[in-house]
Amino acid sequence: MNTATGKELELLNFLKDLYENDLPFNRLIGLKIKSISLEKVKTQFSMHADLIGNPVQKTLHGGVISSVLDATGGLVASAGIIQRMDTDPVDTVLQQFSKVGTIDLRVDYLRPGWGAVFTAEANIMRSGRKVAVTRMALHNEKDVLIAVGTGTCLVG
Amino acid sequence: MNTATGKELELLNFLKDLYENDLPFNRLIGLKIKSISLEKVKTQFSMHADLIGNPVQKTLHGGVISSVLDATGGLVASAGIIQRMDTDPVDTVLQQFSKVGTIDLRVDYLRPGWGAVFTAEANIMRSGRKVAVTRMALHNEKDVLIAVGTGTCLVG
Amino acid sequence: MNTATGKELELLNFLKDLYENDLPFNRLIGLKIKSISLEKVKTQFSMHADLIGNPVQKTLHGGVISSVLDATGGLVASAGIIQRMDTDPVDTVLQQFSKVGTIDLRVDYLRPGWGAVFTAEANIMRSGRKVAVTRMALHNEKDVLIAVGTGTCLVG
Amino acid sequence: MNTATGKELELLNFLKDLYENDLPFNRLIGLKIKSISLEKVKTQFSMHADLIGNPVQKTLHGGVISSVLDATGGLVASAGIIQRMDTDPVDTVLQQFSKVGTIDLRVDYLRPGWGAVFTAEANIMRSGRKVAVTRMALHNEKDVLIAVGTGTCLVG
Repeated sequence: MNTATGKELELLNFLKDLYENDLPFNRLIGLKIKSISLEKVKTQFSMHADLIGNPVQKTLHGGVISSVLDATGGLVASAGIIQRMDTDPVDTVLQQFSKVGTIDLRVDYLRPGWGAVFTAEANIMRSGRKVAVTRMALHNEKDVLIAVGTGTCLVG
Repeated sequence: MNTATGKELELLNFLKDLYENDLPFNRLIGLKIKSISLEKVKTQFSMHADLIGNPVQKTLHGGVISSVLDATGGLVASAGIIQRMDTDPVDTVLQQFSKVGTIDLRVDYLRPGWGAVFTAEANIMRSGRKVAVTRMALHNEKDVLIAVGTGTCLVG
Repeated sequence: MNTATGKELELLNFLKDLYENDLPFNRLIGLKIKSISLEKVKTQFSMHADLIGNPVQKTLHGGVISSVLDATGGLVASAGIIQRMDTDPVDTVLQQFSKVGTIDLRVDYLRPGWGAVFTAEANIMRSGRKVAVTRMALHNEKDVLIAVGTGTCLVG
Repeated sequence: MNTATGKELELLNFLKDLYENDLPFNRLIGLKIKSISLEKVKTQFSMHADLIGNPVQKTLHGGVISSVLDATGGLVASAGIIQRMDTDPVDTVLQQFSKVGTIDLRVDYLRPGWGAVFTAEANIMRSGRKVAVTRMALHNEKDVLIAVGTGTCLVG
């Protein structure tokens, strides 16, 4: 576990702001970053009517689940490149982050998406120079595991 | 290739209406069913500001792509159970459809999601009594292949 | 965590014997069951010339890795049905186990397969009446994580 | 569709020889390259007792299926880098090919692996500078589709 330096904390905050405020689809879901470090990210969102996928059971749409796992995995993969980023001049930072992209994603829908508040957690399994592999999990507020996922991201 | 009977066409229309109008998250994306048969489904949606994932490149959010592939795959898996559905009394129809659910999904993000109108197509690879496997593809209006996916659905 | 009863231990031993001795391809790899419970399985195998996939780097063939993750995941999914198995008459036991089958598998090759002895571990993420989802990991004797996987199995 | 030049044909033959003769685990399975081009590969193998995974049904081991899909996908990804390879001096060729590696693989086991002769086909869905995505299918000699797969390979 690494402790982030001042410069790194600044870049983590930049990422937090980018994901919460500048990505329209994340705003639509209401995705908030609860915590972010160089190796782990937690995000959270609340149930609301727009997110329903099953009109009978009133559960989360599978697409909301995959969107949140994708975003949370992409966020931790982005955090993972901070330590080797070229931050001078500062305007290249967004450019470097915008090159991080999901190549593929697997989502396992384990249980119906019932709940009021959902928390997604993402960890880096491996961070290479070109590719990072991340694992994600989504729990509701009663700590029921609703879905897990694995993502492969291009990071360089 | 099977030709749908009158009863089957009625159920396909029921599914079309369900997916377009009764699933809030599909409405949010603006997902329309272009065509639906017992073995193949085409859906379509248009780019709008809410669906952007990359603020620099103005491309589709990965979550929009996975949501649409998930929904289109789930739709064809639902269509695939029509031939063996018990449709009497009619109020069991929604109940039977609402039991169809994605177990897992893989999405491959092949190219950036640029475009104005996107079309997703889903086919059934195998339809068993318990599980169906579907394959999906997303193209833009210039027929550029943006993503492919594979889903496993519980169908019985 | 459940403690296995005498009957359950008997069935776990039956599975161990089946996987080690009656599945020719597992014998070819030299796969041994190190431990088995109703929720977790550990298997092990040693490097030998036949298992090489990269002649330059002398590392494990990707297919050996996916085979071992598949087998170890299938084994834990089989163990997972023991508590609700019908064991009378005893000759239905093999029949019930032989219906357990992998529906789909994802393997993430994280690091080159270097090593002398490899250990795979599988856990059940969710065990339903029809489908079980398992997660697997492969380490070498220096505890380097070489690969992870996720499998979906039909169990009923 | 590209037509291979003389230099390219030489490299395709080099790959064919490498996969058939120099990878011990492919020899164990008895994997033969039926055809190879810059964009598509067909491989073939015959059933034999060592490849059995289900002693009751006498079907292919899931690991054989995933191994063959992995190898066939890796082969087409390797073929895909030929057009931009640096072939001078010639001893760097093996080095370049040996850097191609599967990052992740999804296998869908659609039907039991019954048959005498199995054919795997792999296509490139996308070939980038760093990553290639491939899709594979396995049929038996009666053209029954037994499994499909999707692989992501590092190619640069």
